Parts: sequence; structure tokens; C-alpha cells
Amino acid sequence: MRLTRHTDYALRVLMYLGLRGDRLSTIHEIATRYGISENHLTKVVHQLGRQGLVKTVRGRNGGLMLGRPAARINVGKVVRLTEPDFEIVECFDRETSQCVLRGACVLQTALSEAVRAFLAVLDGYTLADLLRPGDRMATRLLAAS
Amino acid sequence: MRLTRHTDYALRVLMYLGLRGDRLSTIHEIATRYGISENHLTKVVHQLGRQGLVKTVRGRNGGLMLGRPAARINVGKVVRLTEPDFEIVECFDRETSQCVLRGACVLQTALSEAVRAFLAVLDGYTLADLLRPGDRMATRLLAAS
Repeated sequence: MRLTRHTDYALRVLMYLGLRGDRLSTIHEIATRYGISENHLTKVVHQLGRQGLVKTVRGRNGGLMLGRPAARINVGKVVRLTEPDFEIVECFDRETSQCVLRGACVLQTALSEAVRAFLAVLDGYTLADLLRPGDRMATRLLAAS
Repeated sequence: MRLTRHTDYALRVLMYLGLRGDRLSTIHEIATRYGISENHLTKVVHQLGRQGLVKTVRGRNGGLMLGRPAARINVGKVVRLTEPDFEIVECFDRETSQCVLRGACVLQTALSEAVRAFLAVLDGYTLADLLRPGDRMATRLLAAS
């Protein structure tokens, strides 16, 4: 069972910016620190920007920061936003499903309930909760920045 | 968020055999009814066989049936068995993770908790629960068999 890389990167960007506080960061810097693709990260940041989770300050010394306080960014909401879907098995997509059991099957109900339980746990966390061991994280992440 | 196709097919095989009761089925028949790859299904059935969830009766009129009663096949256990891993994001794999935050990060704790909640829901279902609307399901699935 996997979340998309897009979600993984989105959460990492938010954690990075959360640790930076008011200081601005660049996509290049975040990509370098995590050792991940700058190109992919650009798309992630664009989406987070459209949702107001990341703010871009323009100009020569411009950069990125969180669009609102970490305590007001809910992890469950971010995951709902960044995952393309929660079609945990093929039959969840009504358009394309070929399964002859569709509509008569309890498996779909059980799996929907399981996905809801998964997201409910994440709804209990804010970005601020993820940044709690801030000193240790900051040391690792920001040491060389 | 997705489960693998392997898990999807494993659950479908078990449901099919559960609906058939004592009557034997073949991989060809199951693949045809669901419209899915016979080749892929063979691998799935092989794994389910090794775990005692599916039993093969040999001989000319041989075929497949459940290895134990549907009420004794737990859905959570099947999913744990058929999913290759629950490495929901990259950092869950200690061997390959590149994330500088590994070990200092609460996200991993939150996601582990969410996966546990997901599986706990499925632990509450047996295969027999999935087959509850048996008449409707049997009509759809077995009509032409």
C-alpha cells in the first residue's frame, strides 16, 4: 500500500518550510537538501501554492514560506489534496471498473471504511505536530543551508 | 492510495470460491468471469495455496476450492499477506530511504498509525462477511458458469 510520491514530497516541502519559520527557501534548496528531483518538486509547490499552503515572495531575495501557521495545516487535508484518488482497488473507479461484482459486493464497503479510518488518524495531526522534535529535525535538515 | 492488483485479485478469487461453496472451480473460469489475466491469477492462486487459503483437488475433474471455511478467513490477514509491503512513503524502507529526516520525523509515526487503523478495520471482516449478499453476488458471478 502506497501514497504517491507527489504526496510524499508535498509533506516534505511543508515540513521544510515549517522548520524554516519566517526565513524564505527556494525549490532548489529544498530539492538539494532532500536529494530529490527539482522538476517534480516544482509541480508539488505549484499545487500547494494554489491551495494557499505555500506562499511565494517575489523579487531578488524572494522565496517560499508556509502560507499559514503550521498549527493550521491539517495533515489529513493535505493528503486528501495531494493524492489523485483513494481508489484503493480497481472497482472504486465507476467509469473504468470491469468487475462483475460491482454494486453487489461488501468488499468495497469494507475498504472504504478502512480508508476513512486511515485518513481519520491523519486528521488528528497538524504540520505543527510533525515538527515537534524541531531541534533534531532542524539540525539534520538545515545544517548546511 | 492503492493496494496492489495482486491483493485485488486475491480477494476476488477468495470471494469467487466462497460463493461456489463445495463446487470446484478452475483458474480459467475465474479469470473469464472477472475478465482478468489468467497468467496473473495463476500466481495469485499459487500464493493463496501456499498459505492454505485455497486448496487444489487434482485429477480430471479437479479444481480449486477454499482451503478453510469463509468465516475463518480474515480479510485483514489476507491483505497483510498479499501486499508486498506497507511502505506508504519512501522513508519506510530503511534500506533505500534517502530522507535526511529519517529517525527525527513524526510523519512516519503518524502514517504508521494510519496504516494500523486501515488494517484494523479489515481485521473486523471475514470472507463470510463479504459474501453476505450471496444471492445477488452469485447471480452476477456464477450465472454463466
